[in-house]
Amino acid sequence: MALLNDHFLKLPNNYLFADIAKKVNAFKAQHPKVDVISLGIGDVTQPLCPAVIEALHRATDEMATAQGFHGYGPEQGYDFLRDAILKNDFLARGIRLDRDEIFVNDGAKSDTGNFQELIRWDNSIAVTDPIYPVYIDSNVMIGRAGVKGDDGRWSNVIYLPCTAENGFVPELPSQRVDVIYLCYPNNPTGTALTREQLRQWVNYAIRNDALIFYDAAYEAYIQHDDVPHSIYEIKGARRVAVEFHSYSKTAGFTGVRCGYTIVPKEVTVATLTGDRVPLNPLWNRRQCTKFNGTSYLSQRAAEAIYTSEGRQQVAATIDYYMRNARHMKQTLRSIGLKVYGGDDAPYLWVQTPADMSSWRFFEQMLYNAHVVCTPGVGFGPSGEGYIRLTAFGTRERTEEALDRITSFY
Amino acid sequence: MALLNDHFLKLPNNYLFADIAKKVNAFKAQHPKVDVISLGIGDVTQPLCPAVIEALHRATDEMATAQGFHGYGPEQGYDFLRDAILKNDFLARGIRLDRDEIFVNDGAKSDTGNFQELIRWDNSIAVTDPIYPVYIDSNVMIGRAGVKGDDGRWSNVIYLPCTAENGFVPELPSQRVDVIYLCYPNNPTGTALTREQLRQWVNYAIRNDALIFYDAAYEAYIQHDDVPHSIYEIKGARRVAVEFHSYSKTAGFTGVRCGYTIVPKEVTVATLTGDRVPLNPLWNRRQCTKFNGTSYLSQRAAEAIYTSEGRQQVAATIDYYMRNARHMKQTLRSIGLKVYGGDDAPYLWVQTPADMSSWRFFEQMLYNAHVVCTPGVGFGPSGEGYIRLTAFGTRERTEEALDRITSFY
Repeated sequence: MALLNDHFLKLPNNYLFADIAKKVNAFKAQHPKVDVISLGIGDVTQPLCPAVIEALHRATDEMATAQGFHGYGPEQGYDFLRDAILKNDFLARGIRLDRDEIFVNDGAKSDTGNFQELIRWDNSIAVTDPIYPVYIDSNVMIGRAGVKGDDGRWSNVIYLPCTAENGFVPELPSQRVDVIYLCYPNNPTGTALTREQLRQWVNYAIRNDALIFYDAAYEAYIQHDDVPHSIYEIKGARRVAVEFHSYSKTAGFTGVRCGYTIVPKEVTVATLTGDRVPLNPLWNRRQCTKFNGTSYLSQRAAEAIYTSEGRQQVAATIDYYMRNARHMKQTLRSIGLKVYGGDDAPYLWVQTPADMSSWRFFEQMLYNAHVVCTPGVGFGPSGEGYIRLTAFGTRERTEEALDRITSFY
Repeated sequence: MALLNDHFLKLPNNYLFADIAKKVNAFKAQHPKVDVISLGIGDVTQPLCPAVIEALHRATDEMATAQGFHGYGPEQGYDFLRDAILKNDFLARGIRLDRDEIFVNDGAKSDTGNFQELIRWDNSIAVTDPIYPVYIDSNVMIGRAGVKGDDGRWSNVIYLPCTAENGFVPELPSQRVDVIYLCYPNNPTGTALTREQLRQWVNYAIRNDALIFYDAAYEAYIQHDDVPHSIYEIKGARRVAVEFHSYSKTAGFTGVRCGYTIVPKEVTVATLTGDRVPLNPLWNRRQCTKFNGTSYLSQRAAEAIYTSEGRQQVAATIDYYMRNARHMKQTLRSIGLKVYGGDDAPYLWVQTPADMSSWRFFEQMLYNAHVVCTPGVGFGPSGEGYIRLTAFGTRERTEEALDRITSFY
């Protein structure tokens, strides 16, 4: 008799964005003529840039010939892409990496979800709160999160609140923690950590022999010099941190699926007998067993981002979204709302007025302004009292949404 | 202190094909002028067919425009592809499925590796032996396989030998089994089960409340009417079987990455209290949490396989490989080797002469004929005394390889 992995039953029934879609679809069904604008899910709207399009056509033509055909690629990704990553995203910032510390993936969601397989099921994890739900849900599935309390908190998860009160800078944990998930620039709050603030975390991890899973999916949106693009800008991070990157937001690859994960050779975990084992070959083994590499076309597309045309074009699109963010922040502040983030990230984190719950404010926005946001509590208990807005809309729709919010509010 | 999931240490150091690559590279380094032909790893050589190439160009052009841009797709795959699958691969064979029983994936390796997450870590598994290493290795990583004995067998894995003695038809297990992995047409032996033989397995699973993970990655190579393309051709299979498909071999998508998994709504597993839980929503939850969908381009490419041009072109390529297989089988038999498979699958399973070990014969082939094969023992204990050859080469190289084997042998 096949038995269920019953940790799955502990999960909330739906993924947050499925819940939102359900509510939005119900509203649309009841109001078929209403034009609903989504500033909810973090998906981009601008087309792929010309350099990427050219690379995709070129790679397609290659695949049509016997000489240019590419079958199974290396599970770790092609060297042409790993070398471009090495040179542009790391060496250019003074970070030394080896090529085989880079694992090309099909997007950061897969790897942030799967990487926890390498550590023991009973290790404790800490998350900043609010947080991207994948970090916790993937740990729930293997039993690592423990049981969920009535307060929405998991028993084996340490929550590090990030709220307006502490300027969205998490305090170092006061109890033992084995693994810490950090995402900076942050989804969902849109806030960033300075190099100095991140250094506290690296030092904490070194002192306490903790492991940091660092999600840098939004680094391309950083505008300020004192905000690090990679945790490896901090001395010592190579010993304690694994870093996840994605082209989804960097270059609009949400439908193309490509990113990469950095596993430095110095990062180790302990066995029960106290031996140290490096994570790099273990992740390699995991990927070789359960992953067959990222599409050749997607990898050629990613490579094109690093050409001089590609860099320029990608930067222009990021600038487009960041101008949305600035406009949104100014407008929402001008009507008296408290707005955070949006300076080094494409997300705005808005406090609900009059202590309203986040789902209530979500409904008000949907019913009155016909704008979809994401209720903050969906990202964790400390998200209650906030909503997330994304700057990924087109200029016209974003302005229209802001006009509606302004007039309803 | 982050602790290792120490099940990883139980794994053999290398994935089989990495071992082979190492030996081949060492040989090439010592003999730089020798032309080595690989009939080893199961990768295709023929370019993508014109219908797929056109679809990729078209999808690329869409992605260049604001109107045609596709960002995040459904984690389960686009309806255009799921509907094409439903209609062509199932309805056309009299199999009724719902669209939401189909989950588009990035290749069968990911899903056959990941699906075991849904069942308890201590469930027992049975595998036909020899077998595709991913089935066992993915179970080792979670601790389900137990410990490896000196005989190369895992303590919590039931091995169902498939050898020349039983005509490569596995016997039903004599002990309790929770989950059974079946792959037909079979990798690595290239043999198939008839509808009647597969029926025994479905009936066994129904009687014993076992679950079947059925890998149908090679179904497009079936030439005989009495060999089922899907386990759902067998009555009752919807209650006990999950089925994995891949376009890698069907349409040369090893570098494109697309396939699909069928999880019928009737398939359930038990909780410890005896309740039954359907796997379909659990797999959906897993995919929504740890997977962000397959590349839009890859899904449009897969859709093109189902057009009338696409079907014809794909069939022609399969025919090309199967003519290789026939030529290989005839030639090898003509020199006195015992050869199995290759009738409904692109693999030949060759008995080593004079009870030679499979690694020894692998080395003979490499050193004397400069042809790379795969040692059968790499696929499990019952693979000892066999090697696998693939029919995926070009006609010219395949013939050249066979000439060399003939003259050395």
